Amino acid sequence: MPVFRRVRGMRDFLPEEAQIMKYVEGKARRVAQLYGYGEIITPVLESYELLAAKAGEEVRSRMYAFKDLGGRRVALRPEFTASVARLVATTLRNEPKPLRMFSVGSLYRYDEPQQGRFREFWQSNYELMGSSKPEADAEIIMLTNNLMKAAGLKNCVFRVGHVGVLRRILSQEKVEDKVQNRIMQLMDKKEYDDALELVEATGVSEKCLMALQKLVKVKGNKFSEVLNEMEELVEDYESAVDAVRNLREVLELVSESGERIDMMVEAGFARGLEYYTGMIFEPYVPEMNIALGGGGRYDKLIELFGGEPTPAVGVAHGIDRIMLAMQKQKATLKTKEEKTVAVIPIKEKLKGEALKISRMLRDADILVEVEVMGRKVAKALEDADRRKIDYAIIVGEREMREGAVVVRNLGEREQKTVKIERIVGQIKGQN
Amino acid sequence: MPVFRRVRGMRDFLPEEAQIMKYVEGKARRVAQLYGYGEIITPVLESYELLAAKAGEEVRSRMYAFKDLGGRRVALRPEFTASVARLVATTLRNEPKPLRMFSVGSLYRYDEPQQGRFREFWQSNYELMGSSKPEADAEIIMLTNNLMKAAGLKNCVFRVGHVGVLRRILSQEKVEDKVQNRIMQLMDKKEYDDALELVEATGVSEKCLMALQKLVKVKGNKFSEVLNEMEELVEDYESAVDAVRNLREVLELVSESGERIDMMVEAGFARGLEYYTGMIFEPYVPEMNIALGGGGRYDKLIELFGGEPTPAVGVAHGIDRIMLAMQKQKATLKTKEEKTVAVIPIKEKLKGEALKISRMLRDADILVEVEVMGRKVAKALEDADRRKIDYAIIVGEREMREGAVVVRNLGEREQKTVKIERIVGQIKGQN
Repeated sequence: MPVFRRVRGMRDFLPEEAQIMKYVEGKARRVAQLYGYGEIITPVLESYELLAAKAGEEVRSRMYAFKDLGGRRVALRPEFTASVARLVATTLRNEPKPLRMFSVGSLYRYDEPQQGRFREFWQSNYELMGSSKPEADAEIIMLTNNLMKAAGLKNCVFRVGHVGVLRRILSQEKVEDKVQNRIMQLMDKKEYDDALELVEATGVSEKCLMALQKLVKVKGNKFSEVLNEMEELVEDYESAVDAVRNLREVLELVSESGERIDMMVEAGFARGLEYYTGMIFEPYVPEMNIALGGGGRYDKLIELFGGEPTPAVGVAHGIDRIMLAMQKQKATLKTKEEKTVAVIPIKEKLKGEALKISRMLRDADILVEVEVMGRKVAKALEDADRRKIDYAIIVGEREMREGAVVVRNLGEREQKTVKIERIVGQIKGQN
Repeated sequence: MPVFRRVRGMRDFLPEEAQIMKYVEGKARRVAQLYGYGEIITPVLESYELLAAKAGEEVRSRMYAFKDLGGRRVALRPEFTASVARLVATTLRNEPKPLRMFSVGSLYRYDEPQQGRFREFWQSNYELMGSSKPEADAEIIMLTNNLMKAAGLKNCVFRVGHVGVLRRILSQEKVEDKVQNRIMQLMDKKEYDDALELVEATGVSEKCLMALQKLVKVKGNKFSEVLNEMEELVEDYESAVDAVRNLREVLELVSESGERIDMMVEAGFARGLEYYTGMIFEPYVPEMNIALGGGGRYDKLIELFGGEPTPAVGVAHGIDRIMLAMQKQKATLKTKEEKTVAVIPIKEKLKGEALKISRMLRDADILVEVEVMGRKVAKALEDADRRKIDYAIIVGEREMREGAVVVRNLGEREQKTVKIERIVGQIKGQN
């Protein structure tokens, strides 16, 4: 008999871990509700053409792509944005704006498995479509901070930038989009020297090169000062100045909202995906050097998917990474503590009574495990103890004749005889 | 520009429908908690060998199977049971029994799309491993009924049978397992004549054929009478008599539990999957002729996956089908009604204040949409009205000078000026 294995890069989540994942998912869903984002569920399987359309080469080459039994070229989604863009370009084409949409689920990339990077991974994704205003950008940053706080994370720092600053300088210098993309990718990997070399090779002006050389070093956590410095450096590039001013508006609004967010503004910050057009950001915790998410503005995207021109801003959060951060920061889940009960019949013929009492307790919303192994009481109690069950209800003949059972508090090792109609009160009262 | 389409057989769920799906998923999760089933999350992608191992030919031929970039033969899971069996045969091999496990998520089969049948579909799945006792079977039936009730479904009927009755007769008559499987598949499709013809062709005794001809017609909603009739018909087949007695024990326990379940016991009831060994059941609502789920006992499964011999009973519920049934029965969701608020600044320069008030309300767990379109108040109010928002908070200069805003009840078309520190109380008090 072969031993069946899990596929490499895939994971199983046992109850303890699954509970944390569902906890984070629940927090993400609550944040969506608090900000008015309606949940949408799109398929894991999409057409290859859709998913490949705007993904960068790196993502495209790592998709799980194949032909289905009908000969269609399909792939497992590597991100949510393409599916959301498809919806907005088709089914939701005429929907009034703004459109706020939330998704959560699993995504697939054939990456080399490593810390915080898996071939099946989970994200929560928020998209705000239809607004070009800085308050929309501010909202996306704020809700991300809300989720980090809701997950119990501390000392979160937001890396913030604006792809428009660099891109608009390069555009004014007539650097082609394709080359710009390569430059941005190098910047994203913090390979600034290579990026600047590539800029130089395109034959931009001396002035441009000087400005960029200085710009990529500009960063700091006092956004107003950093933005002043940036604005000065790009003063010859009018549209780049606008980009800096746009970023300033966004950050001022975040600041005015009173949402306390530690920021690190970086003029040389870029993100790998090509579709960003404006503000970009990534949240980090000090314990990890990978981002817990990433977002920003992408005003051209919906058009590229065949929809109406639609300004848009959005963010995706890595649920696996948030879980990792929670683990590193020893964040505790804030869940309702519920008492658990084991119901154990003393004899075979009392099994029906045990099921009846279990049903009654569950009807009262109490968590019950009924003995199904036919074990002796001592054995069943031992097992209940091991599994940290709070109460055991022992169904015996003598007590049943008086309409009662023995309720044993397993933590305190005390027990008493309780009338059946009073068990619920007994358990709940001690909750 | 091509218009990107959804892949055939796949669906998008917009907020209204997604909410119902998440509601059912939440109910399924709660039922799991009430019965002590720990949630596990297994990958959507498994090795083809694992998924094909015990799937019937029908499922196997309709899997989404392909090679990943590492050349591994993989497939999208068409069911949960193989993944759970893999876990129990490997990671959880030495875990004490009973093991109660719950999963919920999407599954994939390349079926012809039709009512209640989709290529991407959702199930909630419960497995109880380690117990061969009838109370374990009873528990699986009871929790299924709990889920149907929790989803608001009425008049649910459970079709119940025991594959052991027919199989053990055939085994005693020396009919090979392979042929048995074919016979059971025909029975599953209610093609009883063809099934009996096939039985006859195997050269079973006259007595056997007579018994089976009568048996497949035996059904009824009074389980005790039906089981008496069955027991009489199979009296020459000792192990089949045991099967009937086992089913009787299960149904008596369900009955003694007081969980009210309408049952239709059918001696000729079979299920397509080959791995069932004992009691089997399917819940139905009168409005639909497809089952809302299916379950039963499969004591040989874990062994077949290379694990220790482990008696097991389980059930999977079709979430899509439950949603369809809810729609047909006009079931209403029992959700907490939460008030929604739109925050609208009168002027550009009050946007920061609007964000601040929004943040404050969300910190108090109130659902808030802030105006991000830069619209005039009248326009924004109209939109809030259309979307049935409960309150609008209008942030104006004059009121702000006194630390107040205008709170407008959009349903009652009344408004008043409220101090900022009192908004939360105002909204919550009227909740």
